[in-house]
Amino acid sequence: MTQSATKMQWKAEACCGQARAGHLHTAHGTIPTPTFMPVGTAGTVKAMTMDAVRATGAGIILGNTYHLMLRPGAERVRKMGGLHRMMDWSGPILTDSGGFQVMSLGALRKLDQDGVTFNSHIDGSKHRLTPESSTDIQHALDATITMCFDECPALPATPERLESSMELSMRWAARSREAFVQRPGYGQFGIVQGGTERDLRARSAKALTDIGFEGYAIGGLAVGEGQELMFSTLDFTTPLLPQDHARYLMGVGTPDDLLGGVERGVDMFDCVMPTRAGRTARAYTERGTLNLRNARHAGDNRPISPDCDCLACSRHSRAYLHHLFRANEILGPMLLTWHNLAYYQRLMREIRAAIVNGTLPQKAEELRASWAAGDWSQDEFPQPDWPPVP
Amino acid sequence: MTQSATKMQWKAEACCGQARAGHLHTAHGTIPTPTFMPVGTAGTVKAMTMDAVRATGAGIILGNTYHLMLRPGAERVRKMGGLHRMMDWSGPILTDSGGFQVMSLGALRKLDQDGVTFNSHIDGSKHRLTPESSTDIQHALDATITMCFDECPALPATPERLESSMELSMRWAARSREAFVQRPGYGQFGIVQGGTERDLRARSAKALTDIGFEGYAIGGLAVGEGQELMFSTLDFTTPLLPQDHARYLMGVGTPDDLLGGVERGVDMFDCVMPTRAGRTARAYTERGTLNLRNARHAGDNRPISPDCDCLACSRHSRAYLHHLFRANEILGPMLLTWHNLAYYQRLMREIRAAIVNGTLPQKAEELRASWAAGDWSQDEFPQPDWPPVP
Repeated sequence: MTQSATKMQWKAEACCGQARAGHLHTAHGTIPTPTFMPVGTAGTVKAMTMDAVRATGAGIILGNTYHLMLRPGAERVRKMGGLHRMMDWSGPILTDSGGFQVMSLGALRKLDQDGVTFNSHIDGSKHRLTPESSTDIQHALDATITMCFDECPALPATPERLESSMELSMRWAARSREAFVQRPGYGQFGIVQGGTERDLRARSAKALTDIGFEGYAIGGLAVGEGQELMFSTLDFTTPLLPQDHARYLMGVGTPDDLLGGVERGVDMFDCVMPTRAGRTARAYTERGTLNLRNARHAGDNRPISPDCDCLACSRHSRAYLHHLFRANEILGPMLLTWHNLAYYQRLMREIRAAIVNGTLPQKAEELRASWAAGDWSQDEFPQPDWPPVP
Repeated sequence: MTQSATKMQWKAEACCGQARAGHLHTAHGTIPTPTFMPVGTAGTVKAMTMDAVRATGAGIILGNTYHLMLRPGAERVRKMGGLHRMMDWSGPILTDSGGFQVMSLGALRKLDQDGVTFNSHIDGSKHRLTPESSTDIQHALDATITMCFDECPALPATPERLESSMELSMRWAARSREAFVQRPGYGQFGIVQGGTERDLRARSAKALTDIGFEGYAIGGLAVGEGQELMFSTLDFTTPLLPQDHARYLMGVGTPDDLLGGVERGVDMFDCVMPTRAGRTARAYTERGTLNLRNARHAGDNRPISPDCDCLACSRHSRAYLHHLFRANEILGPMLLTWHNLAYYQRLMREIRAAIVNGTLPQKAEELRASWAAGDWSQDEFPQPDWPPVP
C-alpha cells in the first residue's frame, strides 16, 4: 500500500508569495492543488456526464450532505455502493456537512446546542442534523473528505452573534472529530469561522488546530460581504493555519475570486457558479463573461473562445449555442456547463504552473488584464476554419 | 468521385418475405437499411451530444423544416454552414417538408391551392409555406434528403376529404419536384397519401412514380388510426412502390411498429418516441418498457438492461436513474435518451441481420415474446458486478 493510501496528506511542491502548489494524497488518488471542485449537489454535476467531467480535467468533486440525506437518502447511497460507485467517479469526493444548506434551504429550522431540526425543502418532512449524525451520513456516503458540522451565520452579523456562533461551531467541530471514523486515505477538515473578525478567526483556528484535522476550511465567507472584505479576511486567516495542511475556501467563486484566494494561500475551492451559469447562457472566458442569449451572438460563427478545447468550442459556434438557448434546448446547458468547467480547470492549471515557475505575479496581472479587456474583436479572433465533422 | 456520391441510390442486399435489407448511398455516406432516424427537431437531438448520437450507431438523422425555418431561420442555418456543420453531423440528414407541423403546431393556418399561411407557435409571426418555398428552405438547410411538401389530414376523415387532400398533395409533389435542385448524392422523396383507402393510395403511388423520386415515403399514418389499420394499409401500399427505391414510413413508431413496418417492406423510420420517452423516465428494453420513476426501481442496483452497452447501462444503476428523475436532474433525460436511442439502433441492427440471414420470422417471434414477457426477474438478471469506476 502506498503512503497516499494509508494517510490523507497534503504536500507542498512550490510556493510563490503566499500561494502554494502541492498535491493532496487520498484513498481515491492524488490531485494537484490549487484545485477547483465542481459541485455535484444531488449526486450529479448538473447537465454533465461523468465522462464529460473527467474530460474537463477535474480531479475532485463535491457532494451535498443536505441534499443527499433527503434524496435519495444516505442509507440508499450506501446500498448503491457509495457516492463514487453511484455517480461513476473514482477520484476523491468532498462532502459538505449540511450545516450551510440547512440554514439556506431548510424550513422551520430550530437551532439548539446539540444540533439543528428542520423541515425538508422537498416534501416538508422533519429531519435533524447534529455533528454526530452529519459525520455518520458522510461516512455512509463514503466521502473521501468529511467536513465538520458547523453553523454559518449570514453576514453582516453583530460581533456577539459571530462569537457565539463560532464558539458553537468549535464545540461541534470537537464532536464531529470524535464521531469521525479514521480510514486509510480518508480525512476530515475543520472549518474556521468568525466572520470578518480577526480575533474570532484566530480563536477558531487555534481551537481547530488544537483538535487536529487532515485539512482546514475557511467558512462563513462569500455570503454577501463582498470581495474586498473576503480578501482582507483571508489575509489574516490563512497565516493562522498550518503550513503543511490543505486549505479550502468554501463556496468561492468567480475566476477573479479564485486567483485572489490562491494568492492568499488557499488550495481548494468549490462553487456552483460555472455550472449554474452554464444553465443560464453565461460563458466564462479568458476575456470575462459572455451572455450567449445576447442577439450579438446570433450570427457569430466563431466558437466561444479560441483557447478552449471543450466540446462546445471544438465543434460548435456561438450562433449555434445562441440558437440552443433561445429554443430552450437541453444541449445548450450541456455544452455550456462543459465549457465553463473546462475554463475553470484550465485556469487552475495555469495558475498552478505559474506558482511552480515562480511567475504568479506576472500571470495574475495578465489574467486580470485579459478579463478586463472584454470579448475578442473579429480581428483578434477571426472566423476559424472548422474541423471536418466526424 | 464514387458512385454513392454521384447519385442517391438504394440497393437491396437481401430480402426475407416483404422485408428488405439494403444500403442507401448518399452524398453524406452510405447507411444500412432498415434504419431508424433519431429526430433532431430544432437542430439538436434533444438531450444528446452528437458524439452520443454517433455512439448509439445512428446512421441518419431527421430535422424539422417547420421548426428550423422559424428558429434560427433557414438563411441563418445556411450561413452557419448548413445543418451538418451546425449540428456537427457528417452523415445524411432528412428534413421533413413542414407540412405536417404546420397542421399540428401552426396557429390560424389558412390552406389554399398554392400553399399554407400560418402563424408561428413561438411568437405568432405570420409565415407561408408552398411546395416551392419548402423545397428552397430544405435546400438552404442542405438536407441530404428533401421531402415533398404535402397536406396531411388527421384520421378518421371522410373519403371525400382524403381524396381531395391526396390530389392536392400530388399536385404539390409535382411542384416540389420542379423546385428541387439536383445535386450529386442528394435526393427527394415523394409522399404517398390517401389515408386508409386502397384506391386513393394506389392513385397516389401512381402519381408519384410517374413523376419519379429518389425514394418514396408513406405519409398520413400513425395519426390516430391504430396499429392494425396502419399495418393493413401498409399491406396494400408498399407493393405499389418501386422495388428498387427506399421506402420511408413517416413518424413511426414503437419497437413493435418498426418490426411490423419492416415485415411489410419499409426501410426507414423516424419517431420522437425514444427521445421523448427518455425525458419522461420511460425506458425501452428487450422486455418492453419500464417507468424509472416507479418506486420499485428505487433500490435496484441493476442497470436498465443486461443486453445494452449504452452509457446508462454500462455505468449506472436503475436506482441512480430513479433518483435522477425524482430529483429532476438533467442527467436523467441525458442518460435515458441515450439508452432508448441505443435500444432502437440495436433493434434495427438485429432485425437487419435476421433479414440477411433469412431468419426474420423466427426473430420477430422472439422479439414479440420477449416484449410481452415483461421485466427480467432477479433470477434471470441478477445484480451485476459493476466494472471499476474509470
